[in-house]
This record gives sequence, structure tokens and C-alpha cells, in this order.
Amino acid sequence: MKSIGVFTSGGDAPGMNACIRSVVRTGLYLGLDVYGIKYGYNGMIDGDIYKMKSYSVSNIVQRGGTILKSARSKDFMTKEGRAKAYEQLKKRGIEGLVAIGGDGTFTGANIFYEEYGIPIVGAPGTIDNDLYGSDYTIGFDTAVNTALDAIDKIRDTANSHDRVFFIEVMGRHSGYIAIQSGIGGGAELVMVPETSTTIGDVIQTLKEGRDNQKTSSIVVVAEGGEQGDALEVAAKVAKELPDLDIRVSTLGHIQRGGSPTSYDRILSSRLGMAAVEGLVNGEKNVMVGVVNDKIAYTSFKLAISKAKPINPELMRLVDILSI
Amino acid sequence: MKSIGVFTSGGDAPGMNACIRSVVRTGLYLGLDVYGIKYGYNGMIDGDIYKMKSYSVSNIVQRGGTILKSARSKDFMTKEGRAKAYEQLKKRGIEGLVAIGGDGTFTGANIFYEEYGIPIVGAPGTIDNDLYGSDYTIGFDTAVNTALDAIDKIRDTANSHDRVFFIEVMGRHSGYIAIQSGIGGGAELVMVPETSTTIGDVIQTLKEGRDNQKTSSIVVVAEGGEQGDALEVAAKVAKELPDLDIRVSTLGHIQRGGSPTSYDRILSSRLGMAAVEGLVNGEKNVMVGVVNDKIAYTSFKLAISKAKPINPELMRLVDILSI
Amino acid sequence: MKSIGVFTSGGDAPGMNACIRSVVRTGLYLGLDVYGIKYGYNGMIDGDIYKMKSYSVSNIVQRGGTILKSARSKDFMTKEGRAKAYEQLKKRGIEGLVAIGGDGTFTGANIFYEEYGIPIVGAPGTIDNDLYGSDYTIGFDTAVNTALDAIDKIRDTANSHDRVFFIEVMGRHSGYIAIQSGIGGGAELVMVPETSTTIGDVIQTLKEGRDNQKTSSIVVVAEGGEQGDALEVAAKVAKELPDLDIRVSTLGHIQRGGSPTSYDRILSSRLGMAAVEGLVNGEKNVMVGVVNDKIAYTSFKLAISKAKPINPELMRLVDILSI
Amino acid sequence: MKSIGVFTSGGDAPGMNACIRSVVRTGLYLGLDVYGIKYGYNGMIDGDIYKMKSYSVSNIVQRGGTILKSARSKDFMTKEGRAKAYEQLKKRGIEGLVAIGGDGTFTGANIFYEEYGIPIVGAPGTIDNDLYGSDYTIGFDTAVNTALDAIDKIRDTANSHDRVFFIEVMGRHSGYIAIQSGIGGGAELVMVPETSTTIGDVIQTLKEGRDNQKTSSIVVVAEGGEQGDALEVAAKVAKELPDLDIRVSTLGHIQRGGSPTSYDRILSSRLGMAAVEGLVNGEKNVMVGVVNDKIAYTSFKLAISKAKPINPELMRLVDILSI
Repeated sequence: MKSIGVFTSGGDAPGMNACIRSVVRTGLYLGLDVYGIKYGYNGMIDGDIYKMKSYSVSNIVQRGGTILKSARSKDFMTKEGRAKAYEQLKKRGIEGLVAIGGDGTFTGANIFYEEYGIPIVGAPGTIDNDLYGSDYTIGFDTAVNTALDAIDKIRDTANSHDRVFFIEVMGRHSGYIAIQSGIGGGAELVMVPETSTTIGDVIQTLKEGRDNQKTSSIVVVAEGGEQGDALEVAAKVAKELPDLDIRVSTLGHIQRGGSPTSYDRILSSRLGMAAVEGLVNGEKNVMVGVVNDKIAYTSFKLAISKAKPINPELMRLVDILSI
Repeated sequence: MKSIGVFTSGGDAPGMNACIRSVVRTGLYLGLDVYGIKYGYNGMIDGDIYKMKSYSVSNIVQRGGTILKSARSKDFMTKEGRAKAYEQLKKRGIEGLVAIGGDGTFTGANIFYEEYGIPIVGAPGTIDNDLYGSDYTIGFDTAVNTALDAIDKIRDTANSHDRVFFIEVMGRHSGYIAIQSGIGGGAELVMVPETSTTIGDVIQTLKEGRDNQKTSSIVVVAEGGEQGDALEVAAKVAKELPDLDIRVSTLGHIQRGGSPTSYDRILSSRLGMAAVEGLVNGEKNVMVGVVNDKIAYTSFKLAISKAKPINPELMRLVDILSI
Repeated sequence: MKSIGVFTSGGDAPGMNACIRSVVRTGLYLGLDVYGIKYGYNGMIDGDIYKMKSYSVSNIVQRGGTILKSARSKDFMTKEGRAKAYEQLKKRGIEGLVAIGGDGTFTGANIFYEEYGIPIVGAPGTIDNDLYGSDYTIGFDTAVNTALDAIDKIRDTANSHDRVFFIEVMGRHSGYIAIQSGIGGGAELVMVPETSTTIGDVIQTLKEGRDNQKTSSIVVVAEGGEQGDALEVAAKVAKELPDLDIRVSTLGHIQRGGSPTSYDRILSSRLGMAAVEGLVNGEKNVMVGVVNDKIAYTSFKLAISKAKPINPELMRLVDILSI
Repeated sequence: MKSIGVFTSGGDAPGMNACIRSVVRTGLYLGLDVYGIKYGYNGMIDGDIYKMKSYSVSNIVQRGGTILKSARSKDFMTKEGRAKAYEQLKKRGIEGLVAIGGDGTFTGANIFYEEYGIPIVGAPGTIDNDLYGSDYTIGFDTAVNTALDAIDKIRDTANSHDRVFFIEVMGRHSGYIAIQSGIGGGAELVMVPETSTTIGDVIQTLKEGRDNQKTSSIVVVAEGGEQGDALEVAAKVAKELPDLDIRVSTLGHIQRGGSPTSYDRILSSRLGMAAVEGLVNGEKNVMVGVVNDKIAYTSFKLAISKAKPINPELMRLVDILSI
């Protein structure tokens, strides 16, 4: 292998730049040419590709977002699109790819590999931490800390006014951000897609808190819960407990950005290095991850299809700590 | 004067604790007894009042919220409520009050003074910076920095995905937070209640940006604008410019909390000291503020009624910097 | 077991409060009485002990330091001191202890257990991450992020002035903070006690950087290296490379404080819960840790004596990423 | 005037990039060509000069340091150096300059103007806030907040261990950073060059604190005080009060870097705009500043020679708040 390409795809995540940097420098260190492909699969199709040097990735380890830009590509979902993409790679002699992204990215990569046999190693870049095959994904630790910082701020107001706050965090199919920011933020209750929490449960928790002289409470709600979003949950609760001073805050897009934490920079750097080393060593059609703090490769298929359950110990912690 | 009381009222603001600390310690320094009144006017009516010592305010200068809690009081809007409140003060020999809050707080204080003649000095505690008689209010600088930090994070995503973001910040009747966070955040446009911005203006700005090769844009929207909130503005723009990838983020309650900035801690400390010194020197029925970095006292009436216009130089800055 | 005590000892670490909170609430949840012992072993000897309630630990999860205060105790190193301490516990019916601290704390706990047979479970509270039996210790993640934030700031100046900065971080016997903040901060070189780095190595790295058109460089130095502290290393390098504009920054005590990160709050909460559950289940004379994200108990002896090597993959990362 | 140049010189300060951005965009807005001069006067002499576009300053408003790099120039202190510099400007048709820096920068600018008559407007870029003619300088607010954040962290440890900390902040000839971070950080005492504080004063304050049941104390020391640096002051105090557990922390270079605060971004943007508008309107040989929140121009001579005293109200605040 003499030439590889790297791109980011899907929602951006803090640490993607650190990962790009690691891919580029590991590639150069191993004597490879490294090409940056902009705007994910779209740039691959359009040939928006340039050769990267060591200085191309200077001073980006601390930056959120992705210098290669990201996009979701409709064209790549067509046979024609993928054919064009392959031509662009072939023309430049690119023999392997590092794809930084989430399940959509890897679904595309899987098809592309099957059609054209080009080796692809994926790095899990998504704040949702919803990929099997890596204990943590790039951006997750930063997103949790951002959510936590917001909860800390909101608790100032909750305490000052004796209010109940429903705080919605990201994680449509995964409660990881919710459970971790909930524990860290001292939430009374956390509602995640993985477990069933009824409105009755919420009401009981809030009543118990009141009985225990709690004057304010925080409920963290993962965005995709079965009881609806935070606004809907709050409205249902308010009907039953009209005396409470209830407010809602939806944290939204701030959770995607910002300078990555130490953990995310190191994870991203490790995964970038391991992705390139994997390619060189013959890995293909796999996602690289960290399992029990060791590098592991998992097939794309497994990575995107197998569920990653939340540690039940964490669910128990919320219960105990909120007494 | 031998005894004074201090309370916080209305929406909490970062720096209120630093102000309470300053009131208490200045009072003690001058040989006064200082009483903390909890939950604003409600606690005054209910007698939720305690004597404060120097250590009562230890280690709070850096904390958001208010250790005296805050509330909006319906009872104080009645003659009976105010009569009860006065009795509670009289009973304890409290001869003067420091009221930390916003226009609602001062409206109540004004009536209370007129009815009972008890000297009250207000300190402007509100993130909105909408009080005449002080260049800045307690909590404003922190709120702007919180909004700015959020905008910085969102710009990471905007840049990575070539998106247009409409970001809603607080400030129902005042565009101060919007204009400052907009300039600091490098926004292409800022919509504030003080000036009229049409949807046509927004569209033109975005089009010009596109013509100038801008791939992403940020529009900061103050919550109470005439074009509606950020969601409504975004919807109207999306109809006219369907090609743009438009997103909305409403920052919400995070803007009220958090550890106060240096500026807010010092401002709060200065105003707390000046409030007590003012009371001792015979000030009554006034808000203490900082005008051109000097302490100034302004009648409650003026403070809550007179408009504080935004520096037109700042509006011009947004225009120039977004080219 | 009906009653337990909890204390913090040795250098404070962010997350100790979250751990105390978890110990208290888990204890109460399990129906135990929980006593807080102030100032570590000193307070145990002096009887500075009080019963804790759920509200005793409200609103502390986000705070650095320790509400139970900490100290190093000379008296506890004597037989008489420990006898007094035991009497104080006996008098109150305290039948088990949770000790939050580092190797000094556990050395004392080990002796105390051997002499009096009182069950003690330790929780690893030290920013240095130098205890065997837990992949991470309470406060480490926060300390690394604090160091990283400082390195990010210093790099602004290094870049602006084309300087070489030697930055000293904590870790007298352990290079964990150095290696992690070094990778995260994009350092050109990291000097840790675990490996031998000569001044010649430093000089070569800086020369290579210069040859590769690097205009500024950062060298992270763990405080207890064999080449001396950062000032000494810098002086030796300056002699050999007089053309370089070299500066030194010693981060110092800021690394111990601050609001704990999400990771530290969750780790602390988990360890606090597991410490109490361990005590109830008959554990004694052990440290509770997290190994491969699972709770594990390790004898005090092993925890304080066995070396925890740095992942060699991380040392390799520094090399590769600095090209 | 058709062409202007902009450069940064002296120590870097957060907000310099925001100021460069404002200079460039205001210049373009007014139809001027704008040249960036790298490495301050050195780049002017060497012709390290390039034409800047609007996108040259995209996405830098939030970054510390200076994209134009900075340096102190020995060559510019010679007649020959300045002659070369003038030639470089003339060759490119640069008819006016914006110099962002501190007193050294303006001293050079003053001579350059007197020799060659080229109009120069300076913008005060220094964290020390030691220039007459502007209430605040670019970078000061950020530096104070950085120092304050460090003090907050250190106080966690001071409180946990009942220690006295001497914390040294920047400001060789000016106590602004010390006094503001000291008030904001709740310091018991602040030692600044502007006033005389004896070791006896320090000892008395610490004794009084002890008498008032204070268990920990913080003394903020400006680096250039007459009693020596923080280490020296601490050593002298330790001799007299051997029972105290005294520690020293020197904050150092972290105070120069980091993302600028809202205040610094806005101040920088305003000053950049006003500098260019000043040049166009015929200003020359002056520093632009903000006085009572209004733009003001002050001759270089006055700006660098006239003292800017610290508001005595602030000194009084420290006294009162530390009781």
C-alpha cells in the first residue's frame, strides 16, 4: 500500500480533527502518501481530494468540527455515485481508506468494499457512543462534559428558584449521554431509550424528592424516549403535579462542538494510528475501536447492527445517588 | 442605622452571591447587623429571615445562583402582603434594605418605600442589562460569555457542514446579549428588538455571504424580536432559500447560571459595597449602578422606565465584520 | 454492619466530594449510619466526627476539594495515635471505614486493619494515577484536562513567538499526566519517569522539528524526571541550542483543583458505591478500583507496591504524532 | 489612502486576532488594500508582508495568539533597520499602519513616524492594562479571567488543607491583573506595585484571618512588587509564622493565551475598526483606546509615559471583603 485517503462523514464530533491528524502523520511516518477527501462521500465522487502534508494538520488537535468538512451523501447511495467515487480514487492511486463517522458512514463503506474491494477501516466518530466494537466513540466524552457543564449551570437556577428542570440531551437511540451526564450532574432521574420509564415513575420520583425535603430536581431526558421529548414529558408531569415550578431546557447543537477533552484527543489519536496500521496490515471492511483499553477491529456489519447495552450498574447509581 | 436586610428577587443572575457577600461584609465592616431575607419578598412576608455573619458568605463569590433563593411574589403586590412584610422588618429592627434584582423587584421596592418610608437601595441583578442607570448589570457579562461559548461550539458544526444557524439568545426587551455575543461570535447578522430587521434583510445578508464564498453563517436572534423567535425566523427564511441547510438552536436557561466572570464578581462586589454605603449615607429609593466606571445612584422610577439604547457603533461593527 | 465512617486523606483530588456523596447515599440507601470524619486520620484521633445525612452531601458533586478536609497525619504513624483513633470509632459504633486517598492513606489503613481488624475499603483518590488495581484514579482525568487546557493556552504564545516551551506537570513517580496531556496537547516530546530520556534526545527532537519547518515546540516534563525539573532541563538544552527562544512554565497546584470532569464524577460515584457495598459484603483491607470498566478489589499491599506501567502504545503515539 | 498595513508586536495577547480581523475587514469595507506584516517590525524590515482578504481572517475571532506572529525587534531600534522597513512599505504603496502592541511597540512607532512621517495608529494589545489612554487593553479581561479560574482551583486545595497560598500573577509594573483577580477570587490580600505593602502588613492580615476563624487564606502577588516575587514573600512570611501551611503558585504563561472573552473580542473589534477609521480620517502617531466606553485617540507619547492609577475603590474593596 502506497497511498491512502481519509475522510469524515455524518454528524461532526469533537476529536475528528485529532483523528485526521493522527491518520495523516501515521501514514507519513509509515512512508505513505495521504490524501484528504473533503465533504465525505460527496467529495470522493466530485474529486474534492488533496494531498496532505504533516503541516496540513498542525494546530488542529484542539479544534472541534472537521477540517475535511462532512456531509451526508445521497449520490453515494446510488451505483453510479459509487462508480464515480471509485474512479476518483483509482485515478490518484489511493489504495485504502480511513472513514471517520458513524453507522451511516460504515453502511456506505461496507457496500463500497463489497463492490470494489477497496480496503476501508472505519474510526467511530459520533457523539452518541452507539457503535458496537468500541467502548467509547470519538466525541462522546466531550459531548457528555458539555452537557454536564450545562446541567451545572441550570442547577444554579433550579436551586435558586426551587424548580424542577427537564433537560433534554442528545442520543436518539442511545442513552449514553443521558445516563453519564445525569449521574455527573446529580440528576434525580434519567430517562433513556434503553429502559422504560413511565410518567408515573417520574411523578413518583419527584414526589419522593419533595417528601425528602428536596426543593429542586433535575430530570435528564434522552431525545428519543418513548414518552416523547422533554417538552412533552414536562407537559404530562405538569398536569399531574400543578404545584411544581417546572421548566424545560433542550441543550441541542452545543453538544456537537467545542474543543475535545483529553480523553477524546487521545482516543482519536489512538484510533487514527490503529486505522492506518490496520490498513497496512491487511485489515479491511472493519471498524477500529477500543475495547477494555485495547485496540480491536470489528466488522462494519457487527459494529452497526449489534446493540451496546448500558452498564446496569450506572442505572442503579442514579437510583441510589438521588435519595 | 443599625440593621439592614438583603434579598434577591426575580430571575437569578451570576454574581448575585458575590453581591450578597459584599453587602454582608460591608455591613459588618461598618458595624451594622445584616439580615438575609430568603425567597425575595415572599420571605420578607413570611419572616424567612436570619442574621448573617462573615462566614455565612464564605466561599460563595464564585458560585452562580443565589444562596438567599429568589422568587416572584404575588402577595407583595397586595397591600396586605406589604403590611406583613413591614411588620417582619420592624420586629427585627431592620431599618434599611438592599434589593438585588430587576425591574419587577424595583417596582415593588418603589411602592414599599412610598408606603412605609423604609430606605431601600437596589442593585441591578439581571442578565438582560436592561436597566437605566448602570452601564452593566450583575450577570450580564457572564451570560454573554456563556452565549459566546455556545456560539463557538455551534460554529464548529456550522463550518463542518456548511450550514446556516439561527441561534436564539435571551433578552426579551433588550438586544444587549444578542449584539455582544453576535459580535464576539462572528455572526453574520444580529436581530435585536431595538432595531427593525426584516426577513428580507436576513435573506439579503445570507445571499451576500454566499456570493462572497461564505460557506456557513450564523444569525443571532434576541428572543423577543418582532419577526418572532429563532424557529419562526428560520422557517420564513427556509421558505425563500430552500437550498440552504438551516438549523436552529435556542440557548435557553444555561445563560442564567454558571460561575460569574471576573467582571461580574467585581461589579457585584462594588455595587454591594456602594449599596450599603449609600444606605448609611441616606440614599433611599434608588438603584446603585456603575456609569462610566463610577458609582451612581438613580431613582427606581428612572431606572425601570428609561430606555438604555444600544451603542450604534456596535450595530455598525456587525455590518463591517461580516463582510 | 450498622455504622460506617468515611474520610479523605493525603492530597486533595477533584472528585473526592462526588465519592463522599456516593458513600453517604449508598450507606443510607442500605440502611447504615454514615459518619464523616474530618481531616483524615487526624480527625479520627481527635474525634472530629459527625453523622451525615443525605442533604449533607447535596450540591457537592460538582465541587473540587473535599468537604471533609484532608491532612497528612504524623500522629497516626504512632501506636498511641492509632489506639486513640480506634477508641473514637468504637465509642460511636463505627464498624467499617471508607478511606479516600493515595498510597500514604492506604499504608496507614493497612496497619490499622492489621492491628485492630476494622474493615477498611479504600477508594483511590489521587490525581497521579499511580495505584495498581484501578485503571484510573479519582481526579486524574480532571488533572489531565486542566494541564491540557494550560498547554492549549501556552501553545498560543509558542506559536505566536516561535518559541520552545518546557511545561512541567505533576506526577513525581508517574508519567500518566505527562503522557496524556502531552499527546492531547500535541507535544513534540514527553519526558516521564518511566522511561529514560537524555538531554541528547531532547536536542535531537528539537533539531528534527526545526528541520521539518516547525517554528515552535512543546516539551512536557513530568516533575520527578531523572534529568531534573523543567527549569533544569531547559537550562541544559539552552546551553546546547542557544538560538532557540526557550521558556519554562510549571503548572503547579492548579492541577489539583477545579470542578471534576464527567469521567471523574462517575468514577468517584461508582467507587463510592462499590466501597460501601464491598464493606457490607465482607471486603476488608482492600482498595476498590475499576479494571477494564469493571469493579475490582485489590489488597492494599498490592495496590501501593505494584507498578502500573504506562501503555507503550501511548509512548509510540508521541513519536509518530510529532513528525 | 489606498493601502494600509497591520502588524502585531511585543508579547501576544488574547484578542489580537480579533483586532487583526477587524482591521482587515474595516479596511476592505472602506475600499482599502490591507497588508499583513508578519513578526512585527522584523517582518517589516524583511518584507514578510502579504495582501489579506476577507477570508484571511475567517474563523480567528475566537483564537488566542496572533496569526501575524509577533516578535521584539532589535534591528528596528537602528536607523538602518527603520530605513529598510520604510523601503518595504513604500515599495508596496502602504501609506498607513495599524500597530497592535504595547509600550515597546508604540515607542518604535513614534520614532518611525517622526523619521518618515508615515501615519500610524496603535491599538493597545497587552494583558497588563498599563497604557494610558484606554480604560482597558486587548487581552486584559481574558488574562484576569484565566488568573481567576486558576485561583478558584487553588482555593479548592487551600480550603481542603487549611493552607495559605501566595499566588503570583503577571503585571510587572501594574497591579491591574492582581487587584481584579484578587477581588474576584476572594483573596485576603493583594500586593501590587502601585502601593506599598510590607511583610508586616501581610503577617497582620493573616493573623487577623486566623483570629476570625479563617482556616485558609489567599494572597495575590503581582510579579514585580517591592517585596520580591511570591516565593520570596512567602519565605519571609514563613519565617515569622512557622505554624502556617504555606504554598506558592506562580501562574506564569497561561495568562497570555486562550480564547478571548466576550469583552476582549468586542474591545478588539472596536479598536480595530476605530484604528482604520482614524487613519482614513487623518489620525497619526496616536493610540486608539476606549475611555468611558467611547473611542478616544491619545498621542503615543502620552500613552506610554503617563501613569494609569488603580481605582482606589478597588483597594478598599479588598480590605472590606476579606473580613
